[in-house]
Amino acid sequence: MAAVAAATRGWRLLVLLCTAVLATAGAPQPPNIVLLLMDDMGWGDLGVYGEPSKETPNLDQMASEGMLFPSFYSANPLCSPSRAALLTGRLPIRNGFYTTNAHARNAYTPQEIVGGIPDSEHLLPELLQKAGYTSKIVGKWHLGHRPQFHPLKHGFDEWFGSPNCHFGPYDNRAKPNIPVYRDWEMVGRFYEEFPINLKTGEANLTQIYLQEALDFIKRQQMKQHPFFLYWAIDATHAPVYASRPFLGTSQRGRYGDAVREVDDSVGKILSLLRNLGIAENSFVFFTSDNGAALVSAPKQGGSNGPFLCGKQTTFEGGMREPAIAWWPGHIAAGQVSHQLGSIMDLFTTSLSLAGLKPPSDRVIDGLDLLPTLLQGQLTDRPIFYYRGNTLMAVTLGQYKAHFWTWTNSWREFKQGIDFCPGQNVSGVTTHTQEEHTELPLIFHLGRDPGERFPISFVSAEYQDVLSRTTWIVQQHRKALVPGQPQLNVCNQAVMNWAPPGCEKLGKCLTPPESTPTKCLWPH
Amino acid sequence: MAAVAAATRGWRLLVLLCTAVLATAGAPQPPNIVLLLMDDMGWGDLGVYGEPSKETPNLDQMASEGMLFPSFYSANPLCSPSRAALLTGRLPIRNGFYTTNAHARNAYTPQEIVGGIPDSEHLLPELLQKAGYTSKIVGKWHLGHRPQFHPLKHGFDEWFGSPNCHFGPYDNRAKPNIPVYRDWEMVGRFYEEFPINLKTGEANLTQIYLQEALDFIKRQQMKQHPFFLYWAIDATHAPVYASRPFLGTSQRGRYGDAVREVDDSVGKILSLLRNLGIAENSFVFFTSDNGAALVSAPKQGGSNGPFLCGKQTTFEGGMREPAIAWWPGHIAAGQVSHQLGSIMDLFTTSLSLAGLKPPSDRVIDGLDLLPTLLQGQLTDRPIFYYRGNTLMAVTLGQYKAHFWTWTNSWREFKQGIDFCPGQNVSGVTTHTQEEHTELPLIFHLGRDPGERFPISFVSAEYQDVLSRTTWIVQQHRKALVPGQPQLNVCNQAVMNWAPPGCEKLGKCLTPPESTPTKCLWPH
Repeated sequence: MAAVAAATRGWRLLVLLCTAVLATAGAPQPPNIVLLLMDDMGWGDLGVYGEPSKETPNLDQMASEGMLFPSFYSANPLCSPSRAALLTGRLPIRNGFYTTNAHARNAYTPQEIVGGIPDSEHLLPELLQKAGYTSKIVGKWHLGHRPQFHPLKHGFDEWFGSPNCHFGPYDNRAKPNIPVYRDWEMVGRFYEEFPINLKTGEANLTQIYLQEALDFIKRQQMKQHPFFLYWAIDATHAPVYASRPFLGTSQRGRYGDAVREVDDSVGKILSLLRNLGIAENSFVFFTSDNGAALVSAPKQGGSNGPFLCGKQTTFEGGMREPAIAWWPGHIAAGQVSHQLGSIMDLFTTSLSLAGLKPPSDRVIDGLDLLPTLLQGQLTDRPIFYYRGNTLMAVTLGQYKAHFWTWTNSWREFKQGIDFCPGQNVSGVTTHTQEEHTELPLIFHLGRDPGERFPISFVSAEYQDVLSRTTWIVQQHRKALVPGQPQLNVCNQAVMNWAPPGCEKLGKCLTPPESTPTKCLWPH
Repeated sequence: MAAVAAATRGWRLLVLLCTAVLATAGAPQPPNIVLLLMDDMGWGDLGVYGEPSKETPNLDQMASEGMLFPSFYSANPLCSPSRAALLTGRLPIRNGFYTTNAHARNAYTPQEIVGGIPDSEHLLPELLQKAGYTSKIVGKWHLGHRPQFHPLKHGFDEWFGSPNCHFGPYDNRAKPNIPVYRDWEMVGRFYEEFPINLKTGEANLTQIYLQEALDFIKRQQMKQHPFFLYWAIDATHAPVYASRPFLGTSQRGRYGDAVREVDDSVGKILSLLRNLGIAENSFVFFTSDNGAALVSAPKQGGSNGPFLCGKQTTFEGGMREPAIAWWPGHIAAGQVSHQLGSIMDLFTTSLSLAGLKPPSDRVIDGLDLLPTLLQGQLTDRPIFYYRGNTLMAVTLGQYKAHFWTWTNSWREFKQGIDFCPGQNVSGVTTHTQEEHTELPLIFHLGRDPGERFPISFVSAEYQDVLSRTTWIVQQHRKALVPGQPQLNVCNQAVMNWAPPGCEKLGKCLTPPESTPTKCLWPH
C-alpha cells in the first residue's frame, strides 16, 4: 500500500510538473491586446466610413489590413457607462453605471459623482492578470475618481491620464481642475501642468498619450510579457484639441485637426508593433465610446455619417461606432463583417484571446468575436439601447424597435441644446418622452439607416419583427438583475480637491463641507 | 520657274505625305473613353463613400485602383439638364436645357416635351469623330426624343436604349409606352418587349445594357478603333429594377439590389478591358447624373450620405456625386483628389484625351481634369447650382453660398412629396422660395458637409467669402449668354406615338391633335 501510495504521489508530481512546463514553454504566449478607444468620435469620422475629407489614411489602412465592422455599437450613448461596459463586459444596467433619479436619463461621472465602479465587478485587466498580462490605461478612466475606484485598484498595473473629462479651466475654489495621474499619484492638473489652450485648441496631450503607449509597448516587449494597453484618449471630446503640428491642417476645422492627430498616432502605434516584430502577436481594436456629439458640431463635434442624431440619444448616431479589428496573420486583410458587434464584446474577446473564460457567476453581455474575426462567422444577437434604467430600443438583425423615443426636453432644445441638428423625423426625434412599448416604432436599418421611415404597423413584416422583438425583450427582462445604481448621488466634497500625491506638488485643495444630493441629469 | 514650281509642289507633297504617315503610324492611338453614368445614384450609395452595407466591391476596387473624387458635382439636380451638360461641357443655362416658365424650376424631358438638344450645340461624340472615335450610347438619352434630337444625329454611331425615363406602364392611348431603340429605329417598348415588373422589381435591362457595352467594346477592339462608350443605365431610377439573380440579394432592399447589379456590371466591363489587354488604353469614369431621389426613399431611392436633401434640390445631396476615375498605368492607384470636379469636366477631359481642344467659339464650363488625374494638380474653380435660370448657389473651395433656398412648395410637401425626409434646417430647407442674394447663407463644407450651420454674417470669415463670391458671380453673370430655353413647351402630340421603325413592329400609334402649352414645372 505504501509503495502504491508513493508511486501515485510520484505520478501526480510528474503530471503537475509537466503541466507547469507546458504552461510556460509549450503553450504559446497569448497575444498582446491593444484597445484604442476614442472619445465622442462618430461613425462617419473616418475616410473608410465615408468622411468626405478623407483625412484618416492610417485608420483606413488599418481597416484594409483587418476587419471593418459597419454595425458595431457602444453600450450607452454616453462615455462613463460605455467605458464601464467595455471593461466589465456587462450592460450599465447590470454593472451599476446608471441612474434612477429620473426616467430615461443619461448619467456619467463628473467630479461631484459619489459612485464609481463597484468592487464586485470584475474588470478586464483584473482577469487578464491570471494569464500573466501587464495592463496599462492611458487617458480617460471615467469609472469614478474616489480612492476606491482608482484603476490600479481594479487590475491595471499602470496609469497615465485623468479620472474625468478635460473640462475646465476651473478656479480651484468652486471646482478644482481635473488631475492627471501617473499610476497612484497625481502629477499635475489640466490647464495647469497640462495646458489646453481653449482659444487656439492647442494641447500636447495626444502626443503625451502616444508616447506613454509607445514606451509601454517597448518595455513590455523587452520583458517578453503579454500586455494589455487600453488607450483611451480624448482629443475628440469637446473642448477638442490638437498639438501644434496638427492645428489648422484639416479641411474639417479644429475637430478634424484632432482626428488627424489621432489617426497619425494610431499609425505610429501599429508601426511600432510591426517594427518590434510583434504585430502578428498583437490584437488591436479601434472604436469609440459613443456617437459624435452633434450638440458641439461643427467646431467641436464630429460626424455620424448617414445616421440619426448623436451622443446622448439612442438613435443610431448615438451608439453606432467606427470599429476596426487588426491582427496581421490571423485576421485576413480587407474584410467587412456585418456581425452586430458591441463594445462589450471586447471584454469577452480579450479574455478568449488570453485563453480565459468570462466569469460564470453573472450575466456577461459581450460575445466572443473570435469566430467572426477568424472564420467570418455571424451570430444572431440583440443590441440593447438604454438611457438610465429605461430600455429605449433593441436591434435584432437589420430591425430596430424603439420602445421610447426622446432626444432632449423642449426646454433644453429651446435653449439651443440640439442632439439632432438639421434632423427632424416626426414622431421619432421627439422632445417629450414618447412611449411606444405596446407598438414600437420599427425601422429596417439596411434600407433605412437614418431611421426616417417607420415600418407600417399593419404590415406582415412589422408583425413578424414585433413578435421576435417581444420575445427577446421578455427573455432579457427575465434575466435582468439591475446593479446598484452608482450615478445617483453627487457631492461637491468628493471632487478632485486633494488627490494622492497632491502634497508633493503643493496642490492639495480643501474640500467644502459634505452635502450629498441627488444628481441632476437633465437628459 | 517651271522647275522651281515643280520642286515646290514635290516638296509640298512630301510634307503632306509625311504628316499623314505620322498621323497614322507615329502618333499613338488616343485612349478609349468609357463614361459610366448612373441615374439618381447618390454620393452615399457606394461602400467607398460610406454606405453601411458595403455592397459595392467592384466600384470600391475601381476606386482603390484609380482616383476617387469626394467633391464632384453634377451640373443640375435633375437628369436631362445634367446629361446635356455632360455632353456639351456647358451649363444648362447656356445649352438651353432649362425653363423660364416659372422662377427657379427644375425641368426635364418627359414625353410631351417639345424641345431637345439644339443643333448649335457640339456634343462630345460629334467632336470625338475628328479623332477617329466610334461612339455608342447605351441606355438613357434624355436630350429630346423628336426626330431632330436623335443621338445618331448628334455624333453617336450606335444607340441601344431609350429617349426618356422608364416610367409606365401606359395604356398607349393617353400616353404611349417609352420606346427602346437600336440605332435609328425602335425595337420595342418598355413594359411590352422590354418588361419591367413593378410588383417584383424584376427587369433584365441592366443585363441587356451590360451585353451591349461588352459587345461594343469587343467589336471596337477587333477594329482597333478608339471608342467612346457612354453607358447611361437607369436601374437606380424609380421604379428601380434588377434581374432575377440580384433580386432580394441586398441588405438595402430593392434599391440595393439594383446597386448590386450595377456594381457587378461595372466589374465585368473593367474585367473585359483588362482581359482584352486594353485597360491601359481605356479611360473609365464612373459618376451619376444627380443626387439620390430621397423623395422615393427608402424603397426606390438611394443615399446621399452625410449631405443635405437630395435630387431636385441645390443642397449638396442634390448635386454632389460619387465619382471615380480609372486608367491603369496612367492614373496612380488609390488616390483621393479634393479637386472640385464637375460632370462637365468629362467633356473637356475626354477631348483632351483625344488630343482635341474644346470649341473656342463659346463658353465651356468643363475643365480638363488630366493635370489632376495625372499629376494631382488642384485648380480653383467655382461650382454653380442652378434651378431653371436661377442661380441658387455657388461653391468656392470649401465655401458654399446660397442666394436662394427652396426645396419644394408647402402644397407639395403637405401632399407627402419630401425632398429632404428626416432633415430640416431652419431657414435653409425652406418650402417658400427665400431670397438671400444680398446676404447669402454661407456654409463651410469641410467643417459642415450637411449645411446645418450657416456662418455668422458678422464674422470676418463671412465677409471674406462674401467678397470673393460676389466677384465670381459678377464675372459669371457678365459672361453669361443664356441659351434659348428648350424646356418651356409641352405638347401631347410630340410623345413617342410613332417612332421610326414602328411600322415594322406594327407599333405605330396615332398622335392626338397638336396642342402646344407651357409645361408645368411645379418645383
